[in-house]
Amino acid sequence: MVLNLLSPKFILFFVLLPAVFAGGVKAQDVFQPYRQDWLKKAEDNKPKLTETEKHPLNIVKLEQDAAAFQGWKAVNTDSVGKLYNNSFKTQSGVVVDFGEHLTGYFTFNIKSLKGTPDAPVRLKFTFGEVPSELSVPFDPYKGTISRAWLQDETVTVTEMPATITIPRRLAFRYVKVELLGASPYFDFHITDMQLKATTAVTFKPPLLAPTTSPLIADIDRVGLNTLKECMQTVYEDGPKRDRRLWIGDLYLESLANQYSYQKNDLTKRCFYLLAGLSGDDGILISNVFETPEPHAQVGNRLLDYCFLFNVALKEYVAATDDKQTGIDLWPVAKKQLDIARKYAGKDGMMDYIKAGKEWWVFFDWKDDLDKQACLQGLTIYTLNQTYALAKILGKEDEVADIPALARKLKNAAYKNLYNPKSGLFVSGINKQVSYGAQAWMVLSGVVSKTEGQAALKALVSTKDAVRPGAPYMFHYYVAALIESGLKAEAKEAVETYWGGMIKKGADTFWEVYDPKDELKSPYNFYPVNSYCHAWSCTPVYFIRKYPEIFQR
Amino acid sequence: MVLNLLSPKFILFFVLLPAVFAGGVKAQDVFQPYRQDWLKKAEDNKPKLTETEKHPLNIVKLEQDAAAFQGWKAVNTDSVGKLYNNSFKTQSGVVVDFGEHLTGYFTFNIKSLKGTPDAPVRLKFTFGEVPSELSVPFDPYKGTISRAWLQDETVTVTEMPATITIPRRLAFRYVKVELLGASPYFDFHITDMQLKATTAVTFKPPLLAPTTSPLIADIDRVGLNTLKECMQTVYEDGPKRDRRLWIGDLYLESLANQYSYQKNDLTKRCFYLLAGLSGDDGILISNVFETPEPHAQVGNRLLDYCFLFNVALKEYVAATDDKQTGIDLWPVAKKQLDIARKYAGKDGMMDYIKAGKEWWVFFDWKDDLDKQACLQGLTIYTLNQTYALAKILGKEDEVADIPALARKLKNAAYKNLYNPKSGLFVSGINKQVSYGAQAWMVLSGVVSKTEGQAALKALVSTKDAVRPGAPYMFHYYVAALIESGLKAEAKEAVETYWGGMIKKGADTFWEVYDPKDELKSPYNFYPVNSYCHAWSCTPVYFIRKYPEIFQR
Repeated sequence: MVLNLLSPKFILFFVLLPAVFAGGVKAQDVFQPYRQDWLKKAEDNKPKLTETEKHPLNIVKLEQDAAAFQGWKAVNTDSVGKLYNNSFKTQSGVVVDFGEHLTGYFTFNIKSLKGTPDAPVRLKFTFGEVPSELSVPFDPYKGTISRAWLQDETVTVTEMPATITIPRRLAFRYVKVELLGASPYFDFHITDMQLKATTAVTFKPPLLAPTTSPLIADIDRVGLNTLKECMQTVYEDGPKRDRRLWIGDLYLESLANQYSYQKNDLTKRCFYLLAGLSGDDGILISNVFETPEPHAQVGNRLLDYCFLFNVALKEYVAATDDKQTGIDLWPVAKKQLDIARKYAGKDGMMDYIKAGKEWWVFFDWKDDLDKQACLQGLTIYTLNQTYALAKILGKEDEVADIPALARKLKNAAYKNLYNPKSGLFVSGINKQVSYGAQAWMVLSGVVSKTEGQAALKALVSTKDAVRPGAPYMFHYYVAALIESGLKAEAKEAVETYWGGMIKKGADTFWEVYDPKDELKSPYNFYPVNSYCHAWSCTPVYFIRKYPEIFQR
Repeated sequence: MVLNLLSPKFILFFVLLPAVFAGGVKAQDVFQPYRQDWLKKAEDNKPKLTETEKHPLNIVKLEQDAAAFQGWKAVNTDSVGKLYNNSFKTQSGVVVDFGEHLTGYFTFNIKSLKGTPDAPVRLKFTFGEVPSELSVPFDPYKGTISRAWLQDETVTVTEMPATITIPRRLAFRYVKVELLGASPYFDFHITDMQLKATTAVTFKPPLLAPTTSPLIADIDRVGLNTLKECMQTVYEDGPKRDRRLWIGDLYLESLANQYSYQKNDLTKRCFYLLAGLSGDDGILISNVFETPEPHAQVGNRLLDYCFLFNVALKEYVAATDDKQTGIDLWPVAKKQLDIARKYAGKDGMMDYIKAGKEWWVFFDWKDDLDKQACLQGLTIYTLNQTYALAKILGKEDEVADIPALARKLKNAAYKNLYNPKSGLFVSGINKQVSYGAQAWMVLSGVVSKTEGQAALKALVSTKDAVRPGAPYMFHYYVAALIESGLKAEAKEAVETYWGGMIKKGADTFWEVYDPKDELKSPYNFYPVNSYCHAWSCTPVYFIRKYPEIFQR
């Protein structure tokens, strides 16, 4: 994900928040005694990436087709031998298909065919995850994020034969090759393209039950591929873009990982990295970079992600029994609770207005989503999950106030946000009804199972209910359906939503998916969307955690 | 130089000639016993390049100015500090000036200025030898040689701070930097650009006499810079283009080198390379490449260059007394004489028509130059020079027929080409009068000094005399002036022609120079001309060999 608004609010985050939490501008670093150790543990747990040599399978033609996803489809035309064995001068614009979404380093060979090479050759390689990326002109560029995210790389070949590796790591399925300059006095051909595909994944998850439907099996397969692509030396949000660790993606990826690839060192690494790079005030920064040296995107404070760190940590410790990591990072989890204490009003309602001014409160790619109920629900959930973590670690006495606070917030939520007549939760001054609000109220246990079911069922017939904007929010909706016992509805939601991507030919699940608008982009240019996004891979978690729902 | 015509004649060279000289297609390699040794000696004499770190001096603005060379001039505007210390986002399109023509590897540093880098940055660097190269749009490209010769390189920066070296070797004075893509969420600056400048030159030639005129001193300085830039691991024709060893350039560069940098190992290396890569028939190929492994541009047979190998070798042996190299390569020089024997008619005239069909007969960038007289003169000269070499090496008896042949050709030239009335030599059916014809007739000693002077003087007032097309031919003209004793005219020719380039601001002498047409290009696109071309550097030779003419 990317913060795509240059709003005043955003500017404020860079300036105000550090002061807010440090109670003025103090020079103190609350985690100073631990950071070096945390960053060392992050380094020690860095997985060694597996490398697999992959080759293109076919030459394809990209054709316009109104019925195809985004209006473009790739049609097999020839074997790759045709490219390799013939003059490249006659094949500029050729597109090859590697047959699957891959992440890694691309190498090609180039040799003379006739005559002696007497001048440099210039080639342009464009890498795309989906066909439209190679069909839509990039310039003049109208996207709101860096043009350099698009994977077009120009290579000057000064001698041949040559084996050339493009330095930039790439994420793609298709490659287009164009000839930009060549001498008329010799001919040459491109041979032996390959990708050194990388991933942290080493373990092949077990097959699903034979009773699993083909659609669910496909969703699982595509979800696993998505996760595999995103698991590099951190849990990346997306291997094309943004190639970095965000807390929200970490949470969902670690859930899916727990039930599939079980790469626990990667999960640990990410926890330690985030902890080691938290602000001086001990509050987490939403995302971090690994290179050139690990560093955070200073100032990028995202409230719900701070809470989700605690949730993810508890899930991890509970699933792996790795108490040592829990104990190491307990101070961080404990510190994030200050956020709850700060904004919890006397009436037990979180001051979401004030929080929204002082923080980026995310929850979903949805500008018109009112965040009050989401924030209330997540806060309650976080308080409870953190206390559960404390119990596992024997740290209850350090957070003795939390259970009561959680109850207070829960009661206030029920009192102020629940509409017994409609059976739905509302959010904000305008009493907005949204999928997010219902999901978080259900997940946080504010209502009974029965009431939860009723709320989620009532959503379907609520005309103006604010739907999820991104697959990210859809995860929480499905989790809520399962939590409330609406198993058939959960299965149907997964089959409909993720199945929609499957039916449209997804090799990996997309960052952005609106069934009614295939060209939707938060960046004003859909080719720059990530078409392999970690936060969309959680069907893997659902399918494998709840086989009784999904594999029957 | 580049063969810029895809003529049927050219195609013929690739097919016919090997058969012609091998008397059919034999599989024999006449120099097979020697090649490995020659190529080893070429490798052993490869100079170690000196590397010097160079930095830009100024930011410049490129302005249109009808009075400036090619209509563009560079005006100093700021110190480079302005580029380094400010956001690059506000400076896209900046041009920096390194203050001199340099050849080597370019490195730059890039650092964030504000915010955390969260997306790749894309930069385009364009390197130019002269201001017009950075001012004229390259596309749509209309040149007849590879678009990839133009030095625009796109770099994707995926993390910072970073120190990035562009892999391609570059030749330039000016660099333009443009921003093609960046994230709106952070700012950055480019700092510390440098060029690792390379040359084979290690020796600083002595200063000229204090009586030397400022113009001659400038010509010498610019000529020395040109030569220094072209002296890499071979004598290159031009460091931007074509970056390779041609026999004609070797001849002129080795003459200039002998009187300045005295890098004899480089000269030896080039002789041995050309010998080692000659055709199986023992006839030289006009140009060779060093990488990936030494190889010739197979099929590129240029007649006058085969002869000039002998001339250059004799000059080298006579100047250095390195008889061993002479003896090693004597078989090659001897073999080239077969070309003379083959085309010399019974009447003593070279069958230039037949030769022109079977060879590329070059002499000059001048389509309408009739080559008969040039070929006749060069042949005589070559025969005499080769025999002189034979005498130095004690090999006269192997070429006993040559003096008589040379005399025969000389007499035939005088009889058939000399017009005693006009005092000029004519060439071809149409009795064309050209600078080239006079030059070669004088250099080959066909006429007496007096007649030679008269011919060269008569040229000036001959209205339709075909002038030199390139500085290459101009060298031979000046050499002829000196040979005939027209010292003042020689000095004036150098001051006028090369002085013309000096006055137009040349940092190095150009591949192509027509005083009346600054946009002249054999490639239909003048930015791709080489503006640092070895064959234009011979004033260094004249000035330093004949101080009595040029340094008074």
